[in-house]
Amino acid sequence: MLQRLCVLRVSGSISSAAASFHRTQHSLFSSASSAMAATEESLRKALAEKQSAVEAQGNAVRALKAAAAPKSDIDAALQSLNALKLEKTDVERHLQSILSADGGLSREAFRQAAVNTLERRLFYIPSFKIYRGVAGLFDYGPPGCAIKSNVLAFWRQHFVLEENMLEVDCPSVTPEVVLKASGHVDKFTDLMVKDEKTGTCYRADHLLKDFCNDKLQKDLTMSSEKAAELKHVLATLDDLSAEALGAKIKEYGITAPETKNPLSDPYPFNLMFQTSIGPSGLIPGYMRPETAQGIFVNFKDLYYYNGNKLPFAAAQIGQAFRNEISPRQGLLRVREFTLAEIEHFVDPEDKSHPKYKEVAELEFLMFPREEQMSGQSAKRIRLGEAVSKGIVNNETLGYFIGRVYLFLTRLGIDKDRLRFRQHLANEMAHYAADCWDAEIECSYGWIECVGIADRSAYDLRAHSDKSGVPLVAQEKFSEPKEVEKLVITPVKKELGLAFKGSQKNVVEALEAMKEKEALDMKAALESKGEVEFEVCTLGKTVTITNKMVTIQKEKKKEHQRVFTPSVIEPSFGIGRIIYCLFEHSFYMRPSKAGDEQLNVFRFPAVVAPIKCTVFPLVQNKQYEDVAKYISKSLTVAGISNKIDITGTSIGKRYARTDELGVPFAITVDSTSSVTIRERDSKDQVRVDAEKAASVVREVTEGHKTWQDVWSTFPHHSSASTEE
Amino acid sequence: MLQRLCVLRVSGSISSAAASFHRTQHSLFSSASSAMAATEESLRKALAEKQSAVEAQGNAVRALKAAAAPKSDIDAALQSLNALKLEKTDVERHLQSILSADGGLSREAFRQAAVNTLERRLFYIPSFKIYRGVAGLFDYGPPGCAIKSNVLAFWRQHFVLEENMLEVDCPSVTPEVVLKASGHVDKFTDLMVKDEKTGTCYRADHLLKDFCNDKLQKDLTMSSEKAAELKHVLATLDDLSAEALGAKIKEYGITAPETKNPLSDPYPFNLMFQTSIGPSGLIPGYMRPETAQGIFVNFKDLYYYNGNKLPFAAAQIGQAFRNEISPRQGLLRVREFTLAEIEHFVDPEDKSHPKYKEVAELEFLMFPREEQMSGQSAKRIRLGEAVSKGIVNNETLGYFIGRVYLFLTRLGIDKDRLRFRQHLANEMAHYAADCWDAEIECSYGWIECVGIADRSAYDLRAHSDKSGVPLVAQEKFSEPKEVEKLVITPVKKELGLAFKGSQKNVVEALEAMKEKEALDMKAALESKGEVEFEVCTLGKTVTITNKMVTIQKEKKKEHQRVFTPSVIEPSFGIGRIIYCLFEHSFYMRPSKAGDEQLNVFRFPAVVAPIKCTVFPLVQNKQYEDVAKYISKSLTVAGISNKIDITGTSIGKRYARTDELGVPFAITVDSTSSVTIRERDSKDQVRVDAEKAASVVREVTEGHKTWQDVWSTFPHHSSASTEE
Repeated sequence: MLQRLCVLRVSGSISSAAASFHRTQHSLFSSASSAMAATEESLRKALAEKQSAVEAQGNAVRALKAAAAPKSDIDAALQSLNALKLEKTDVERHLQSILSADGGLSREAFRQAAVNTLERRLFYIPSFKIYRGVAGLFDYGPPGCAIKSNVLAFWRQHFVLEENMLEVDCPSVTPEVVLKASGHVDKFTDLMVKDEKTGTCYRADHLLKDFCNDKLQKDLTMSSEKAAELKHVLATLDDLSAEALGAKIKEYGITAPETKNPLSDPYPFNLMFQTSIGPSGLIPGYMRPETAQGIFVNFKDLYYYNGNKLPFAAAQIGQAFRNEISPRQGLLRVREFTLAEIEHFVDPEDKSHPKYKEVAELEFLMFPREEQMSGQSAKRIRLGEAVSKGIVNNETLGYFIGRVYLFLTRLGIDKDRLRFRQHLANEMAHYAADCWDAEIECSYGWIECVGIADRSAYDLRAHSDKSGVPLVAQEKFSEPKEVEKLVITPVKKELGLAFKGSQKNVVEALEAMKEKEALDMKAALESKGEVEFEVCTLGKTVTITNKMVTIQKEKKKEHQRVFTPSVIEPSFGIGRIIYCLFEHSFYMRPSKAGDEQLNVFRFPAVVAPIKCTVFPLVQNKQYEDVAKYISKSLTVAGISNKIDITGTSIGKRYARTDELGVPFAITVDSTSSVTIRERDSKDQVRVDAEKAASVVREVTEGHKTWQDVWSTFPHHSSASTEE
Repeated sequence: MLQRLCVLRVSGSISSAAASFHRTQHSLFSSASSAMAATEESLRKALAEKQSAVEAQGNAVRALKAAAAPKSDIDAALQSLNALKLEKTDVERHLQSILSADGGLSREAFRQAAVNTLERRLFYIPSFKIYRGVAGLFDYGPPGCAIKSNVLAFWRQHFVLEENMLEVDCPSVTPEVVLKASGHVDKFTDLMVKDEKTGTCYRADHLLKDFCNDKLQKDLTMSSEKAAELKHVLATLDDLSAEALGAKIKEYGITAPETKNPLSDPYPFNLMFQTSIGPSGLIPGYMRPETAQGIFVNFKDLYYYNGNKLPFAAAQIGQAFRNEISPRQGLLRVREFTLAEIEHFVDPEDKSHPKYKEVAELEFLMFPREEQMSGQSAKRIRLGEAVSKGIVNNETLGYFIGRVYLFLTRLGIDKDRLRFRQHLANEMAHYAADCWDAEIECSYGWIECVGIADRSAYDLRAHSDKSGVPLVAQEKFSEPKEVEKLVITPVKKELGLAFKGSQKNVVEALEAMKEKEALDMKAALESKGEVEFEVCTLGKTVTITNKMVTIQKEKKKEHQRVFTPSVIEPSFGIGRIIYCLFEHSFYMRPSKAGDEQLNVFRFPAVVAPIKCTVFPLVQNKQYEDVAKYISKSLTVAGISNKIDITGTSIGKRYARTDELGVPFAITVDSTSSVTIRERDSKDQVRVDAEKAASVVREVTEGHKTWQDVWSTFPHHSSASTEE
């Protein structure tokens, strides 16, 4: 155990199941293609050369003037100077366009148009708006809330029901002991700096990141060496210690953004909301920062519930809380959010998956570690190939990557703006076997929306250790097996004589040796009689002699194998997925008159907040009765729908529903038959009034496609119902 | 405004939308029928008489002995004494049986059997069990979690979809200003006492309640006057001030339950979990104690979203948090729970409801205020009659009472153990127009599970006042209306001369007068020239003369009416409903061999955690393939199912699924046809293997009943598949 703690401390990684969620996105820069990076570098070099040439020519002109050279000479020199200046401006413009293409103005404009529509139609609302709100807290208004509940229902169908997962529902209020065991109390922190005069708090890495990005975008005359340095800072931002971060802030002279006041040194701020449980004030608690711990602490019961068999998965959907230092990026970085997490428990010696074949042929954008390190870009890889080549660590991890791909694309995420990025060695906790993020590209760059990690036995071991309750699985042998076990026996008397007060540390370090290490020591002791041995907890190396320890293999009969299962954890940030889905679904198209741009969300039916609207073409009791009849039939069938009997023009009513992403509109223009219009194609068919609800039901539930409907019923294009 | 605040302070009621949720249940005693109460009283009297008679006869015997009376006399006296003692024991037994019939042993035994099954099958689990848990926090394990998600899905279908409600989803973390406005910061408290030596905390009212209940159950020799006193204490427990509660605790000599140490005086403890938002520590926040406030603060946007039309309803499902002082009663009193709340906004001048007729003919147990006050019991009333007689305040309130009745009974709540109890005047907040609780009877007594309140304009006004943002609706007149308005004009100069520093209070009190009050004052001033006027904020009555104020009616043209909508709020405690559903669904029946009692939950399909299990009759690849095919077809149709291919006997497998409340079991006993068994009747039909999934789908989705299935397919009773 000491050995493990020691490693944990050295690695300094956050022992959090979803730690990656709170890391900065490796967005704009890590994703820049190498081609683009090469162009940028050559342009920066060219610009620096032009700048030197302009300066040299300027000096030449001044020299000619000082020497009172002939006017024609001076004019010629001036002409070259101007030509050089023009050339410099050209290079500058080119560089500027390269820099703004990725994350530049068009993205901003697109986002603004989408966000305007989202806020105006109450997809989401800054929480407590009438009290001027609180940063990082948002409400889902009616259409957003419907989308969220559709996404969660589909998640349950796609994961829980399909895999027979054991879904649990645990409270958010969590006593300290649980989060102490998981490592959150000690390590779930971000580095913060304070404005030394006003006390305003900032995330230290954000300030440094903003400074570097800003400099890279605006300072075109920067040397390419300096640019490379800033990019290196951006790439290694997550790895910087408080001291290193503080040093950089000092070196670059970064001050508080609003006041320009000096900043404090960076120091860790724990991101958990703290509270107190019960009236005594004696039980400290936190609002959970993830839902996973609720599953781990229940492992024993869940394993029993599953008939003491592996593998099995447990799942949980619920609120999680992170008291962000200074939230920004709207729905992407919030202080309270919904997580959907799966913990798939598996025998570490057998990570195959029975349904792996069902996803092995999928091919999509993957961004393995090697491609990232060598500056290449993400590429399309067949999942089966990635697993067989060992790029993805094991079948079960591969299976979930495939299932996540299917989940996201079926929701409406554009497959060309979705990639699976493998964690670099420095991003991953030391105990993790492999880790991939599903990243979705939106106007803020590539956003991590799902983390899929093989966390090995870490979490169950941590809770076993802290609680004293063994969280293990058994494999019963059909007949007893004779096994050879390595037994390490420290000779305490000798160790006590040699190390006195440090004896305990040495004993524990010896006992914690892994098999390979112990066998090496055995060999060394046998050949040389002594060996150097590093004791992490002492922070030094000691000499172990062959009197101090015996290491030998012993044979035993065993009836079962007892082991801590590995856990493979797909963890979904539901709000981030929904925000990216908003952006991927949003587009604008001209109105029929061509005088304005209309907003449309192309949500698939499974996600759409309302599946169908029902309109009487004109205000008329007979039509209204038919509309009400259809609406009622839809409601009975569980199809969310809205009836609109206002006198507004049919075109305006279509536009209103397009803006909510309603896929179908039924217009009542007679008492016997009605039209059904599909949102994106604007195609219309004519259907009997009594059949309308069931047609819409079949197509929204996915039993039929719109193409089927289109080929079954007569097409409609009466001028009266056109836009 | 002052007027209102003043009333609020005087009434002392908790200004919380769901305040009633945290009140003590008016359970065992308020529900005792008057007949039973009468019997109890006469028995207590009879017992006291017998006791006196026994004592008198005992004295007589002693006197005879002392006087050395003849043996025959003494024997005769002894015989009468024994006869009297026997009679006393009889009365005692009778009284005991009366007292334990309601809340006695059989209930405990039933609860224990149900709870054992619930905990063993992981319907719920004490949270963080491996760390010895935290009182008042529970996890839902797999079947409980599935039931919860089914209940919420049905709630959405029954309320949100059916009524086109605007569902929103707001964060739990709430800044203080919002809960200050709602009154929770100041008034959301329970009275607490501390063990003066150990510091252990108790709810003061619980200790008093336990003392009274215990005394009434165990002290059979108590006088009927004393018994009446204790019952009065129980009935008025909610109204006792801290001082009165403290006085009772002293009077009865109540001490700390475990240690018998003296207790502190009662003092208020705020039930909200407190936290701090952001890193500065300067924004105090709380975990919301209810979801309603998130809707109120969004009223303006939601009204706009609804096309500026009334009535409309908003709804929210989400977590709520109450830091209970000493939680007990398992799932019924917890520190974190799921609420589902509806806020139906309506014009206070028109509380009709368009769909009221659909529920008016429903008839069920209602317990109006009058019946409670006069000691009668709940009775079956037709809802339409309750509304037309004014027992229920208005149609909209009545409509929701009816919809709640349908919701609960369709979930599986026994209609004979469900009643709607009207709040007594002293339970209701001063601003509420009417309030009914749906109470469900379980082993703990009658439990309030849904509150349905007409809260008038209170909440919107409170947030308007605090935020400065008007939360109002407009009714536009088709043509301007001439209206007469009462204008109250205090003459400040005269008031200043008369009241000096108190002038402001008097002015505000005058301006806050309601129309009736002002007209009375006008009449009095005209006839007598002066009038006595109570100024709450001064706590005294002042004399107003006709020089100090003018009151007159003025005519104005108005184009619209601006008003604060009333809100009718049905608020559902989902965990409480689920617990009661567990109890109402649980029963035991003997196994076929008759050697053990088997547990069954008779959940309706809409609620059942798993809808169907699939078993191959014997372990055999062909049967297993058919079972897997059927299971897959069910999954595709969205029907949760579980396949069980263990070699356990079919009877045991049925018993295992009965214990989870699975309504249907498909047993594969051939490759062409299979049997479907219904849980409660144990009836089986034989169906083609390919049809099995669709038959189960139709009957679980409610398109067919089991009776339909039973009459369509051949019945099956092969010995091989019987239990």
